[in-house]
Amino acid sequence: MSTQVGIIMGSQSDLPIMSEAALVLEELGVPYELTVVSAHRTPERMVSYANEARERGLKVIIAGAGGAAHLPGMVASMTSLPVIGVPIKSSNSIDGWDSILSILQMPGGIPVATVALNGAKNAGILAASMIGAFDPEIAKKLDQYKINLKEKVENSAQEIETKGWRLTLGI
Amino acid sequence: MSTQVGIIMGSQSDLPIMSEAALVLEELGVPYELTVVSAHRTPERMVSYANEARERGLKVIIAGAGGAAHLPGMVASMTSLPVIGVPIKSSNSIDGWDSILSILQMPGGIPVATVALNGAKNAGILAASMIGAFDPEIAKKLDQYKINLKEKVENSAQEIETKGWRLTLGI
Amino acid sequence: MSTQVGIIMGSQSDLPIMSEAALVLEELGVPYELTVVSAHRTPERMVSYANEARERGLKVIIAGAGGAAHLPGMVASMTSLPVIGVPIKSSNSIDGWDSILSILQMPGGIPVATVALNGAKNAGILAASMIGAFDPEIAKKLDQYKINLKEKVENSAQEIETKGWRLTLGI
Amino acid sequence: MSTQVGIIMGSQSDLPIMSEAALVLEELGVPYELTVVSAHRTPERMVSYANEARERGLKVIIAGAGGAAHLPGMVASMTSLPVIGVPIKSSNSIDGWDSILSILQMPGGIPVATVALNGAKNAGILAASMIGAFDPEIAKKLDQYKINLKEKVENSAQEIETKGWRLTLGI
Amino acid sequence: MSTQVGIIMGSQSDLPIMSEAALVLEELGVPYELTVVSAHRTPERMVSYANEARERGLKVIIAGAGGAAHLPGMVASMTSLPVIGVPIKSSNSIDGWDSILSILQMPGGIPVATVALNGAKNAGILAASMIGAFDPEIAKKLDQYKINLKEKVENSAQEIETKGWRLTLGI
Amino acid sequence: MSTQVGIIMGSQSDLPIMSEAALVLEELGVPYELTVVSAHRTPERMVSYANEARERGLKVIIAGAGGAAHLPGMVASMTSLPVIGVPIKSSNSIDGWDSILSILQMPGGIPVATVALNGAKNAGILAASMIGAFDPEIAKKLDQYKINLKEKVENSAQEIETKGWRLTLGI
Amino acid sequence: MSTQVGIIMGSQSDLPIMSEAALVLEELGVPYELTVVSAHRTPERMVSYANEARERGLKVIIAGAGGAAHLPGMVASMTSLPVIGVPIKSSNSIDGWDSILSILQMPGGIPVATVALNGAKNAGILAASMIGAFDPEIAKKLDQYKINLKEKVENSAQEIETKGWRLTLGI
Amino acid sequence: MSTQVGIIMGSQSDLPIMSEAALVLEELGVPYELTVVSAHRTPERMVSYANEARERGLKVIIAGAGGAAHLPGMVASMTSLPVIGVPIKSSNSIDGWDSILSILQMPGGIPVATVALNGAKNAGILAASMIGAFDPEIAKKLDQYKINLKEKVENSAQEIETKGWRLTLGI
Repeated sequence: MSTQVGIIMGSQSDLPIMSEAALVLEELGVPYELTVVSAHRTPERMVSYANEARERGLKVIIAGAGGAAHLPGMVASMTSLPVIGVPIKSSNSIDGWDSILSILQMPGGIPVATVALNGAKNAGILAASMIGAFDPEIAKKLDQYKINLKEKVENSAQEIETKGWRLTLGI
Repeated sequence: MSTQVGIIMGSQSDLPIMSEAALVLEELGVPYELTVVSAHRTPERMVSYANEARERGLKVIIAGAGGAAHLPGMVASMTSLPVIGVPIKSSNSIDGWDSILSILQMPGGIPVATVALNGAKNAGILAASMIGAFDPEIAKKLDQYKINLKEKVENSAQEIETKGWRLTLGI
Repeated sequence: MSTQVGIIMGSQSDLPIMSEAALVLEELGVPYELTVVSAHRTPERMVSYANEARERGLKVIIAGAGGAAHLPGMVASMTSLPVIGVPIKSSNSIDGWDSILSILQMPGGIPVATVALNGAKNAGILAASMIGAFDPEIAKKLDQYKINLKEKVENSAQEIETKGWRLTLGI
Repeated sequence: MSTQVGIIMGSQSDLPIMSEAALVLEELGVPYELTVVSAHRTPERMVSYANEARERGLKVIIAGAGGAAHLPGMVASMTSLPVIGVPIKSSNSIDGWDSILSILQMPGGIPVATVALNGAKNAGILAASMIGAFDPEIAKKLDQYKINLKEKVENSAQEIETKGWRLTLGI
Repeated sequence: MSTQVGIIMGSQSDLPIMSEAALVLEELGVPYELTVVSAHRTPERMVSYANEARERGLKVIIAGAGGAAHLPGMVASMTSLPVIGVPIKSSNSIDGWDSILSILQMPGGIPVATVALNGAKNAGILAASMIGAFDPEIAKKLDQYKINLKEKVENSAQEIETKGWRLTLGI
Repeated sequence: MSTQVGIIMGSQSDLPIMSEAALVLEELGVPYELTVVSAHRTPERMVSYANEARERGLKVIIAGAGGAAHLPGMVASMTSLPVIGVPIKSSNSIDGWDSILSILQMPGGIPVATVALNGAKNAGILAASMIGAFDPEIAKKLDQYKINLKEKVENSAQEIETKGWRLTLGI
Repeated sequence: MSTQVGIIMGSQSDLPIMSEAALVLEELGVPYELTVVSAHRTPERMVSYANEARERGLKVIIAGAGGAAHLPGMVASMTSLPVIGVPIKSSNSIDGWDSILSILQMPGGIPVATVALNGAKNAGILAASMIGAFDPEIAKKLDQYKINLKEKVENSAQEIETKGWRLTLGI
Repeated sequence: MSTQVGIIMGSQSDLPIMSEAALVLEELGVPYELTVVSAHRTPERMVSYANEARERGLKVIIAGAGGAAHLPGMVASMTSLPVIGVPIKSSNSIDGWDSILSILQMPGGIPVATVALNGAKNAGILAASMIGAFDPEIAKKLDQYKINLKEKVENSAQEIETKGWRLTLGI
């Protein structure tokens, strides 16, 4: 399968968060690429990336940025591919409200699929679900992923119910 | 083409907003269905809807809800299809913050693709872009949609530049 | 007395907070059970828990969850028992606003009795007060609990008034 | 059945909202009383009301107030009965945030069961569920109330699915 | 004097607000131009406008936009001219917080001079003050503008002090 | 008694709110003066007013302002008299948060006694209580004012208890 | 001079903050007392304190509390003395918003003079200024306090201007 | 070139942040001065600074302050020069909201060019861009500054694309 998902971020400092999208895509078997593209520092690079994404075969773009986060919305304005926006709580952000609102509140006509603050893992899963809607193999992996989540909770419940909460907490 | 998008909402009172998703999907030629499913009032109906959506051939679900909006997240927890959440500013909501946060801030593993407050039109376009990633016909219509947006702005610019802003405002 | 209160939480990581509800119920002599039930990861388990709670003899359910917290509201939609919701300030939550609003702002018809952020101790006391409304033994313990609170404040006041605030602060 | 629920509010101007609690309690067959008690304007009256509530046979107190809303918390500090707080969005309140936070964020030891902004109807249902936990008649009425909610949604869904959303909206 | 200030806005619906910048620039004798440029609908037009502004002789750009407002920041990323951003409270904005934060919180290296919500008049005065720093004629007009403001307040004070506040209010 | 309280406001448009301070001071028999002083438009006038207030015999200054409200804090920086700040929710304010925070959050050393949003009546009562701390006549009037508040609530309670809430609401 | 100011706080854990009020009152030569009074844990003690304050000779009460802070407002409802409220950012408070709003937004008729979050020092200065309005000795000390603040800033400015900012920062 | 930019701040504790404005102005070759001026502690010094700035040859003033930040707005009210305001997140500020709003939300007639929270570096660049609008040398340096930003991002992108994100993160 060719590269399906493009993961981009406004700055290398976003990599520790954004790499979680890469990790989960690997786990789900979805080929991806990952690089840095800044709306404000490399606007031409952003225009090229957005304009060429579809013809390069990508199916989804995941864009993460902090503060006044313009990357997801600007990329969305220049491609017909779905764009997933990841608001990032960076150092001088105001508790993340700035990046959430500047990604979420896009005007009519130019949607961005926004996930939770620092929610890069969910961005990866959401990208996989878009592909899985058309690819039964990926859908099967997503179903298995959910089963694993369920079993983890059930094991955790069983541990607490068997050992009691004090032992589980180690007190 | 079979029905691709399921539009659901928590209450009939959400219909004036949510019908904008239907309108834009019609404009883009994407077959959809639309109904009412309440997470809190019809939980069994919600479970059935979510569980059967994929096998019924849907590719995307758009779910709108106001206040403590649980519909998008609960549906997302029960299907591998992508779920788009539309926060709705209902009468006793707190300026929409409640529905935004209870849709956006989903835990790791269960993403919801959140759009702007009352952003049902954008939810429709986003759904179309997910399908358009695999369907060149829909992609072409999305490109045309963007061109129309652009032309509307350009006409508007030309009007102001030609007539002056006073005449444009009618003063 | 049979088990009166069911304490559930969305994730084992909520246990350090939620165990405060267990502690205070023990102190007040109210039998309880405690386990993990996730709205998003184990929806069927949640449905069973909610549906069977009453017939299993529970009188109150305390449900804690963070972020887009759907557990308290979804359980409330499936039982006629009172449900107390504990908003939890988890790691990627937005200062707790997300869990507060997604628990508090329930639609008409489906109430959740919401307590303060991380207020699991108060959830336990509130559950005891609901039972104490019908059980004079528990009510007496609640009255004694209040007297203890009062005496602690009075002792503290006396210490400051006698020793002076500098010595009390140890400066 | 004697009077079970006391509904109080800080000002007569809260009556249009708070009367919704009375209405739903009538519908559920729970005897109640309703009056005005102000924490700030009639502190002695508040003390008497709180201190005598239990011996007068009340099982729950519903207290509504706007702005810096101290009534629910102060009453809760003086009775072992459960107290339900209704934040009210009054004229000079700041979008209701002030009354929500001054009711919800009670200190450890003194819980208030907070419902949604202007959520007096839900306060009434919550009070009924506390009584219904010990009274099967009331519980049966609550179950029927939920069935009615469900049927209303199902009818609404059927209308939209049969007539189409345009006719439902009347366009 | 050639055109000094370029006023742009994301949509013609912003014109009633943004025309206040034009009005005050006329009053201060600063030549300006005004048109519509949308970051999301006409990205190429925005790139051209930003890139050519300096060589066309502009000294300042005033950019107004609502919601997830990317126009001021994107223009600032492509010119060395100072860019003044006007957050606009549009219909589906969240009380204006979205446009304020997506204009104000620009990353290091790319400043936008942000003024108050809907503060287009102040944007015009700020632009004039930037030009007035190098042009004594404009500076003199700004000083006169301040004197007029002062006199208006002083007259208002005198009216109240002479007539009394009741007559001033017309009661 | 000479003029005790100076009421100032940033703009004549604040008069409908600020006149409530005047009204209650008249009711309590406290001589006052009222005028317009703008921190931003008449800074010299503000300096004179603040510097001369004490020697002119004033005991308290009440200052109301909206938006980025600098008047109360600036006056407080230039007098040793207590200054009461009234945040005003003006037209382009952001729900009043701007004026609240720019009055309340004064730095160490320069306090402003802040009252509720649009709380000019309370500012008047607070000023009277400062004077009443040293003047038994005013204190007596304040006590009577509280008794009147209490009686109004008690009458209201009696009306509802006698007539029932339906008749009180006129339904 | 007899005790003029009563400093009270809801919990001994507030003492590190509230002792700053005591310190500055000592510096300004204003006799005070300091103790713990909890609105929720010792309501009767609070009633006595408020009712007796005036006859015991106090001129001002400073009340600090965190979370849903009811102490300042409840005390204000039971005395004609001015009450200064200090919002405290306690451990489970929501960034202090809860205590600010539940102290600031008092209903008409019952004012609290609110100072900044954790602003106990300013509460002390404000109390002194209320007394200083009637006591020239205290007023003189307040004037001297302001001169000291001014000189500290001027020394700081001179240091930076003389040594340069790098040496001042020690880099 | 004579001193073009005056950098002032409310307190020496703001120097670590505000020195970033100085650093970037040095890098861009713009002569500046830097000192401490407090609106609340040295109001006369502030008046002199603002009144004399223009005649001393300054072209722009950068003013930083935290909490209820009045320095930028008050200086702007007394000079026709452009004033750039830097909101500073100081220790007892409420996440910076107080300083942002008290700088940004200036009334009509008195603009402040507000930059991001703690955005002193951007204030320096913005000041340079105002001067660069009239000085081609400075404009050239600003263009070079942008090229450097771009190259840093491109190098970062190349590193990640060449080495892979794991090696870049050092894992």
